[in-house]
Amino acid sequence: MSSPPPATGPVHEALAGLSLVDHHCHGVVPADLTPEAFQSLITEGDVWPASGITPFDSPVGVAVRRHCAPLLDLPRHAPAAEYLDRRAELGWREVTRRFLADAGTDTFCVDTGYAPDRLTTPAELAGAAGAQAAAYDVVRLEAVAEAVAAEGVEPDEYASAFLAAMAEAVAERGAVAVKSVAAYRTGFDLDPRRPSGPEVTEAARHWLAAGGTGGRGCGAGETAHTRPRLDDPVLVRHLLWTAVDLGLPLQLHTGFGDNDIRMHRVDPTHLTDWLHLTSGTIPVLLLHCWPYQRQAAYLAAVFEQVYLDVGLTLHYVGPARARAILEEALEITPFRKLLYSSDAYGIAEFYQLGALAFRQGLAGLLQDRVGADELSLPDALRIAAWTGRDNACRVYRLTG
Amino acid sequence: MSSPPPATGPVHEALAGLSLVDHHCHGVVPADLTPEAFQSLITEGDVWPASGITPFDSPVGVAVRRHCAPLLDLPRHAPAAEYLDRRAELGWREVTRRFLADAGTDTFCVDTGYAPDRLTTPAELAGAAGAQAAAYDVVRLEAVAEAVAAEGVEPDEYASAFLAAMAEAVAERGAVAVKSVAAYRTGFDLDPRRPSGPEVTEAARHWLAAGGTGGRGCGAGETAHTRPRLDDPVLVRHLLWTAVDLGLPLQLHTGFGDNDIRMHRVDPTHLTDWLHLTSGTIPVLLLHCWPYQRQAAYLAAVFEQVYLDVGLTLHYVGPARARAILEEALEITPFRKLLYSSDAYGIAEFYQLGALAFRQGLAGLLQDRVGADELSLPDALRIAAWTGRDNACRVYRLTG
Amino acid sequence: MSSPPPATGPVHEALAGLSLVDHHCHGVVPADLTPEAFQSLITEGDVWPASGITPFDSPVGVAVRRHCAPLLDLPRHAPAAEYLDRRAELGWREVTRRFLADAGTDTFCVDTGYAPDRLTTPAELAGAAGAQAAAYDVVRLEAVAEAVAAEGVEPDEYASAFLAAMAEAVAERGAVAVKSVAAYRTGFDLDPRRPSGPEVTEAARHWLAAGGTGGRGCGAGETAHTRPRLDDPVLVRHLLWTAVDLGLPLQLHTGFGDNDIRMHRVDPTHLTDWLHLTSGTIPVLLLHCWPYQRQAAYLAAVFEQVYLDVGLTLHYVGPARARAILEEALEITPFRKLLYSSDAYGIAEFYQLGALAFRQGLAGLLQDRVGADELSLPDALRIAAWTGRDNACRVYRLTG
Repeated sequence: MSSPPPATGPVHEALAGLSLVDHHCHGVVPADLTPEAFQSLITEGDVWPASGITPFDSPVGVAVRRHCAPLLDLPRHAPAAEYLDRRAELGWREVTRRFLADAGTDTFCVDTGYAPDRLTTPAELAGAAGAQAAAYDVVRLEAVAEAVAAEGVEPDEYASAFLAAMAEAVAERGAVAVKSVAAYRTGFDLDPRRPSGPEVTEAARHWLAAGGTGGRGCGAGETAHTRPRLDDPVLVRHLLWTAVDLGLPLQLHTGFGDNDIRMHRVDPTHLTDWLHLTSGTIPVLLLHCWPYQRQAAYLAAVFEQVYLDVGLTLHYVGPARARAILEEALEITPFRKLLYSSDAYGIAEFYQLGALAFRQGLAGLLQDRVGADELSLPDALRIAAWTGRDNACRVYRLTG
Repeated sequence: MSSPPPATGPVHEALAGLSLVDHHCHGVVPADLTPEAFQSLITEGDVWPASGITPFDSPVGVAVRRHCAPLLDLPRHAPAAEYLDRRAELGWREVTRRFLADAGTDTFCVDTGYAPDRLTTPAELAGAAGAQAAAYDVVRLEAVAEAVAAEGVEPDEYASAFLAAMAEAVAERGAVAVKSVAAYRTGFDLDPRRPSGPEVTEAARHWLAAGGTGGRGCGAGETAHTRPRLDDPVLVRHLLWTAVDLGLPLQLHTGFGDNDIRMHRVDPTHLTDWLHLTSGTIPVLLLHCWPYQRQAAYLAAVFEQVYLDVGLTLHYVGPARARAILEEALEITPFRKLLYSSDAYGIAEFYQLGALAFRQGLAGLLQDRVGADELSLPDALRIAAWTGRDNACRVYRLTG
Repeated sequence: MSSPPPATGPVHEALAGLSLVDHHCHGVVPADLTPEAFQSLITEGDVWPASGITPFDSPVGVAVRRHCAPLLDLPRHAPAAEYLDRRAELGWREVTRRFLADAGTDTFCVDTGYAPDRLTTPAELAGAAGAQAAAYDVVRLEAVAEAVAAEGVEPDEYASAFLAAMAEAVAERGAVAVKSVAAYRTGFDLDPRRPSGPEVTEAARHWLAAGGTGGRGCGAGETAHTRPRLDDPVLVRHLLWTAVDLGLPLQLHTGFGDNDIRMHRVDPTHLTDWLHLTSGTIPVLLLHCWPYQRQAAYLAAVFEQVYLDVGLTLHYVGPARARAILEEALEITPFRKLLYSSDAYGIAEFYQLGALAFRQGLAGLLQDRVGADELSLPDALRIAAWTGRDNACRVYRLTG
């Protein structure tokens, strides 16, 4: 069966030609992957070999076989085994090159603080993406706090040592933002107030004494670290307030993730009181958001400092459903508040698949509104450029 | 580019010709508005002049430029600056007249208890809408309670003074309903039981002593009042039970609103125990509801006294997305339980835009179901008349 | 007006020809029904005779008149009164035979633990469905626990008596699964840990002493029982852990139901900690799920043992909206994790209507993705067979 002609129109063309800014992603594993390792990177669950259920039998697996296989010279919908064979045959460097070239992304903001696998650095990622690409560092707050603890610190010096270590990491790496996974550690139903110095010291005393044995669970790969896992509610609050002191935009994991999330605690509207208290300080970028994209949109509509994306979600639902997610995310969101991200991690496919899902989903939505005369074409083109590129340049003060 | 032909069919025609009952709205500002004042009235956020982000760059702004501009003799999608200029040129009286004439609404139930701006009275609103129009008053419980406090009352007389003041306001104004913004004050996770007399007295004592300095935040404009803000959980419960004693339908703000909402606390299913306790008493009308329209629909399906609308939501998402919201709101809702409202406040555009979004969205939904033979045409016409008009007449015992 | 041609294509044909496994349903009332009794069985609310609102004026009523009437030799969209007359004229045996024959379901897993009405047994249901049909028993945990209490048991023997009674019921009836309505009793925000023996004894002491007078409310029909209603949080936890000990798949009511549900407490993601603790033990099947189908899908994507369906929901929203629900339910769900159920109770219509809504909704979704080349036809056919039949056979180890 031949493929239907792709959807066309000036909005599709504009988005197809737009160099995207991927405002939140990770690196790729610079190595060839076993079939099991590849499958573990295309699911937010674990691989369940005893179950007979493979991650390929899911929306993201179908999307990889449909949209990624042709870039490896395979037919659309190639079987999973053929896909894995061909990928191994080409080798990770060539695979990475092909997907990054096709992604059409020229700027990456890279969260370097989560690496249960060894990953490419931002510079390596930009290098693979081509001569014109740039990559910026995003410093993960929890990783730095845990490194401070692992290196040894007195409880009453924890706060200042953490702030200094963050400032140093930001300066050294020229970071454009910081990131928090408070969602994984406590959820968002936190006391919103800035904790006092003695409260922080007391909480640090308990945490440092526990030495990493505490915690109610752990995220994928996080057990691999010997660092004490920061999940004390006072220290998580303190970490968010430290982000305010640093003055850089704060990326916040929200909603969808692995099974270390307690989904009912990561509805971002739990942050409302904290957003009131920090109004006028730093931009806050809500990442992923699904299934709370409407709640995130509400916050973006009523708080000047709030932005959102639906990264991660777009490749997991695939191009077949990306538009529906974008429709909800854009119901009331000011058009300067939505950003593009892939949240690609580990495999190069997701830079391409995320970009494709974003471009096709948004173009379909905007083009149809133009067709129905609900939106003018110049407005549609403006919204495409804003969300795909300009909003990120503005928030992170990129010169791109 | 010429506009595509509008969707047609007998359901579209029936809804286009139906005089709507707008069961929940406010008045308009009877004055010419500065550009900033206008923009502040088309967002649930504040105006953010330093940000370079204007409320026109949002779904509601696009909808105003598309659907309201032609009524001011401008082309569709006219630029915001031209829109504001032309609006000023015509003057507020002419603008109001045009939008109300086009809205096709002949009955308004007007919440008169929220007016950080000076607004038209119900009679003035009906007058602007034409000779055949009628407007009824809806008395806001919190406004009366706060007026009772501001005038001075002993704690042990608060309950009876409040009930008497409500009864007097209802009688004097011929009100058809009362309204509560408990959602803004405490949210819905309240003890559902009727508070005892001593509990109310004790809570009133604290509240009156605090004299309006209390409260964790404040709604748009509410700081303009010197009245003590009623946000004590016992007094909010008491206020809801006072509505039961009054015997009139109760309108309840639910979901979407400004940033004084804590969204996770205003899921209306938190009211389940209270709805059990008050079963067989007064109709309860859940307003706005987004993003909880499915939760509101569930309550309307299983509690005889519960009704809902998606007012406010419809003009904020705009005609491009109104149908999607109505699809969700109607998934399981009995057809006698959905009502139309605009929740227009301040500007006349929203009476017209809300009515247009409702008519087009509902007609598209119903006509397509008729086309797919999922619904008969007589049923579709009945549902249109019920939701646009008859359900409101029935609940509020209007003679229209 | 003639009916539009039905949607066609190979996926529609495959699903039309597939014998479904209905993995969760109840029996039918083996008697002719009064009009009021019939109406009470097509709503999750009560019948509200004083209101003038009939359950026929709702999406499910419209669907019955559209899709069930032709099977009673009536025109599509026949009036409700004609429908009820014709149904009475044919008699319940003939009506049941017709709907079950049309459902195309050859395997039923029947929850026999909820019967405020007298219902057909699984064997009788299978008999009515035809010579080739099979029906299996699902034992409801709460019903057995309450029977143990009603028969008299010492508090310190409750745990062992309950486990023995469950094991006996499972063995005697050849049950393939157990079921819990913890959602109705406490919701899911429970302490996830297995309660200790002394905790269970102490809770049983209070519960047995209360003798059925306790409880904050009651489900439809549940007041008819003189059994003590099990709603103690410790005993509900213990009941879920007893399911783990039994080793059979556990069906869990989730989301939508009658007004005894507190919807905000039955978001299945509240079960996350319990799912971590019981990982590697029993399959957990989340039933109904609406409006939490995305939350259920998340759990199915990240926990090996979690499955879901959207039974009950599909006939209440009707074929006009079933696809939209399935689209959300399948956004990220592995294709081996979605099952079909009707959750039919009391009337035979819902076996047919649920099956029709599932077949049409899923076929429309899959066929369009094949048409857009987002999915290959072989993959679409595989997903249809898995979700309609094979996944259930696998989870319940059915030989079908």
